[in-house]
Amino acid sequence: MKFTGNHILSVNQFDREAIQTVFNTADLMVPYARRDKRTTVLDGAILGNLFFEPSTRTRVSFGTAFNLLGGEVRETTGMSSSALAKGESLYDTARVLSGYSDVIAMRHPDANSVAEFAQGSRIPVINGGDGPNEHPTQALLDLYTISKERQSHGESVDGLHIAMIGDLKYGRTVHSLSKLLSLYNNVRFTLIAPNELAMPDYILDTIDNAGHRITITDQLDGSVDADICYQTRIQEERFPSQEEANKYRGKFRLNQAIYTKHFQSKTVIMHPLPRDSRADANELDNDLNQHPNLAIFRQTDNGVLVRMALFALTLGVADKVRQYERDVTWYSNKNQA
Amino acid sequence: MKFTGNHILSVNQFDREAIQTVFNTADLMVPYARRDKRTTVLDGAILGNLFFEPSTRTRVSFGTAFNLLGGEVRETTGMSSSALAKGESLYDTARVLSGYSDVIAMRHPDANSVAEFAQGSRIPVINGGDGPNEHPTQALLDLYTISKERQSHGESVDGLHIAMIGDLKYGRTVHSLSKLLSLYNNVRFTLIAPNELAMPDYILDTIDNAGHRITITDQLDGSVDADICYQTRIQEERFPSQEEANKYRGKFRLNQAIYTKHFQSKTVIMHPLPRDSRADANELDNDLNQHPNLAIFRQTDNGVLVRMALFALTLGVADKVRQYERDVTWYSNKNQA
Amino acid sequence: MKFTGNHILSVNQFDREAIQTVFNTADLMVPYARRDKRTTVLDGAILGNLFFEPSTRTRVSFGTAFNLLGGEVRETTGMSSSALAKGESLYDTARVLSGYSDVIAMRHPDANSVAEFAQGSRIPVINGGDGPNEHPTQALLDLYTISKERQSHGESVDGLHIAMIGDLKYGRTVHSLSKLLSLYNNVRFTLIAPNELAMPDYILDTIDNAGHRITITDQLDGSVDADICYQTRIQEERFPSQEEANKYRGKFRLNQAIYTKHFQSKTVIMHPLPRDSRADANELDNDLNQHPNLAIFRQTDNGVLVRMALFALTLGVADKVRQYERDVTWYSNKNQA
Repeated sequence: MKFTGNHILSVNQFDREAIQTVFNTADLMVPYARRDKRTTVLDGAILGNLFFEPSTRTRVSFGTAFNLLGGEVRETTGMSSSALAKGESLYDTARVLSGYSDVIAMRHPDANSVAEFAQGSRIPVINGGDGPNEHPTQALLDLYTISKERQSHGESVDGLHIAMIGDLKYGRTVHSLSKLLSLYNNVRFTLIAPNELAMPDYILDTIDNAGHRITITDQLDGSVDADICYQTRIQEERFPSQEEANKYRGKFRLNQAIYTKHFQSKTVIMHPLPRDSRADANELDNDLNQHPNLAIFRQTDNGVLVRMALFALTLGVADKVRQYERDVTWYSNKNQA
Repeated sequence: MKFTGNHILSVNQFDREAIQTVFNTADLMVPYARRDKRTTVLDGAILGNLFFEPSTRTRVSFGTAFNLLGGEVRETTGMSSSALAKGESLYDTARVLSGYSDVIAMRHPDANSVAEFAQGSRIPVINGGDGPNEHPTQALLDLYTISKERQSHGESVDGLHIAMIGDLKYGRTVHSLSKLLSLYNNVRFTLIAPNELAMPDYILDTIDNAGHRITITDQLDGSVDADICYQTRIQEERFPSQEEANKYRGKFRLNQAIYTKHFQSKTVIMHPLPRDSRADANELDNDLNQHPNLAIFRQTDNGVLVRMALFALTLGVADKVRQYERDVTWYSNKNQA
Repeated sequence: MKFTGNHILSVNQFDREAIQTVFNTADLMVPYARRDKRTTVLDGAILGNLFFEPSTRTRVSFGTAFNLLGGEVRETTGMSSSALAKGESLYDTARVLSGYSDVIAMRHPDANSVAEFAQGSRIPVINGGDGPNEHPTQALLDLYTISKERQSHGESVDGLHIAMIGDLKYGRTVHSLSKLLSLYNNVRFTLIAPNELAMPDYILDTIDNAGHRITITDQLDGSVDADICYQTRIQEERFPSQEEANKYRGKFRLNQAIYTKHFQSKTVIMHPLPRDSRADANELDNDLNQHPNLAIFRQTDNGVLVRMALFALTLGVADKVRQYERDVTWYSNKNQA
């Protein structure tokens, strides 16, 4: 896979070598994200950050990643403020907006819209989520987090046992992550979901075809010997109706007691965030906030590293990042975190 | 016309010499917009990008133009989020916000609001469109595009024959462009519009007083020997009602067949964008997308150059742009476009 | 009070020494805000500008202050576009977003929400207003303005006589300013408000306990020997209902005639802005716009200086600002203002 000048639209573009390239580049970014040093490698470059669907976390993460490389960000949020509402085609929008920046990160509520946009774009487009379809940078940051958590125990992604819990039907993060994990060796999947929210067959086929082991169950039961427990949010906005979504709210909860009962002391807890902390949902309890295995905030921090890596790779500057290194002039406690 | 420290509010401010100054400065900007080089001449300067009416294209184009000169952008979008909604006068808003930047680009739904704002501003204000009134940077980029297209055939704006088609009543771009073209010599206008959407008399008077030739018709008929075919969008938001606007949707279409039937092989196609590509409007068909004479995306690219020129001129740095030139560190295919 | 690495949440954190540190640092910022010089001391640093409640003026002022120090700004506006709407806790939002910047400025409609957010943040948080509760940077810029206006007459804040007029119940600016003024010596307060909108008892107690003199009245009467006349806006958004708010609109007006009748030629006029200039409110008439004692736009300009100071102090670069000084390349008339 060639990165420079190319789009990042789908996890299907990635093989193990490409993933490793992203992860090695993400590793390079640690001192800049931690503020030990900074880099001006993209000083003067412009990111077009196009969020036609709101997503504070992903939007700011992309923007920050670009700023951390020294670049500028021009941002567009919402649909109504867009010419799309006046009947402009995605092709036109892409042709025009790709004249205004050097790379684009884009989120859109409609499946395949980002790929359609990319066809009109004269610059690389990175998919920041196209509705129910794909969210490749989330999948990459999830896998990067798994890889780092495993590394800290001297292990690799090969041989992993992951439990995925909750809404496995509408949750695109578990779909994309499953595809990426299928590229590794000897992965074991334990899928825990109500039957109505079960993992779709085409994902199961992908896992199965790659020769991995799958256990499917509709409740969390007994001891689960998982390295990773990947908890999800009910994707209310993807359900046919709010009533339908409400049926499942709060059905799969994880708190200190449940964690201790079903999981090992090694089990790392992940979640794509945001987690719904309202009492009737509470899918991942605050009583786990101080638990050293709670990796959810390491995930979002890693998201910055992975997005920095993708920008550096698509703009062909991964090998120059260090050359443009500068000292940090201000106080930061991030290097102590 | 003195640019440094002054407002750009109306095309009426411009004579041929001033236009030529803008165009010469825009020409200087090509290598930076194409990413052959970059410039940091406005490093540390701040643009206040105030869009009280939404316009993704124009807003991002102004912001990008400022970034390309090395400056920072502080942005405000929408009316509701503004103190104007709490009864603040435009004078107060201007006095306050002009303390927060070095130059302001402003769009507002009300005619003359930008000029009123400028009276309270302590820094230069560039009109990014004040409702039905003016949109001078669009007129300048249109004229710049015409000038460039003509130049590529060894011709100048003098002696041009332009056909304007569609909503010539509410489309402020054709009004402003007609005013600017009237400054040149021996221009021929063919105005094609339903009677209810005809070019207003005061614009016809301007053209006529300048001694140019006008042909008025309510349909595209026979062979039109035009150098430029300027197609428009029905300005639905300016009509008294949506029903009124709907009457004219799709009435004037341009596609490959119509183009071939009525125009010459030399005729350049322009449109202020966005074009409405929905089936019932489709004012400029996608089957022309690959046509070499379709200049609509060259128009938006030129918009960045013209806005860079206006920023450089109002902030008095046009002659320093090259002095602050730097190399581009990242991959770009724009210099190959 | 230690600034570096710490939150700025409340005026209660400040003693006279801390205030003086902020003011001395704000004084240092004058040449950069006036564009005599610029500084790149925060080049590469990122501000997270989180405005969960709209406030154009305060938002842009924070962003500009950070840009003037050389830093970048990542902005979030509105609640709906936020994960908070999906049930995310402020703790989670803070943990995540504090991974995306070096310092955060935050406004939120709910009292104490900024302090709650700060508990989850790994970086300094500056309160940009938490609903009816606090708006410490406004109080500091008000006091800084008073201090500067007094200084220009060779006087200090000690011995000040301030008249506060209008909505003293819901106007958090007069509450916070009163607390800060209570730290000084021998201040005299004349509080002019309808009984229903009188200054709350806990603020009166603070003033009283500090040994200052208070005069309370429900109308502007006779001659008021005040150094400062601090006029307010009816805080309509804080009233139980619009009807309740309407009762008081236009009740306390200040114009040239009223000013001349009740105040001294020395009396400086202040207002937290925005002022409601609609005819039925018109709390501070435009006929005073050219009056040399009208300090309202000096207040907003000072706001940039104070916010620059707070950023420089919390990020520990106040003593490096001059070291990173650069020339201004572009035309500016601000240094002539």
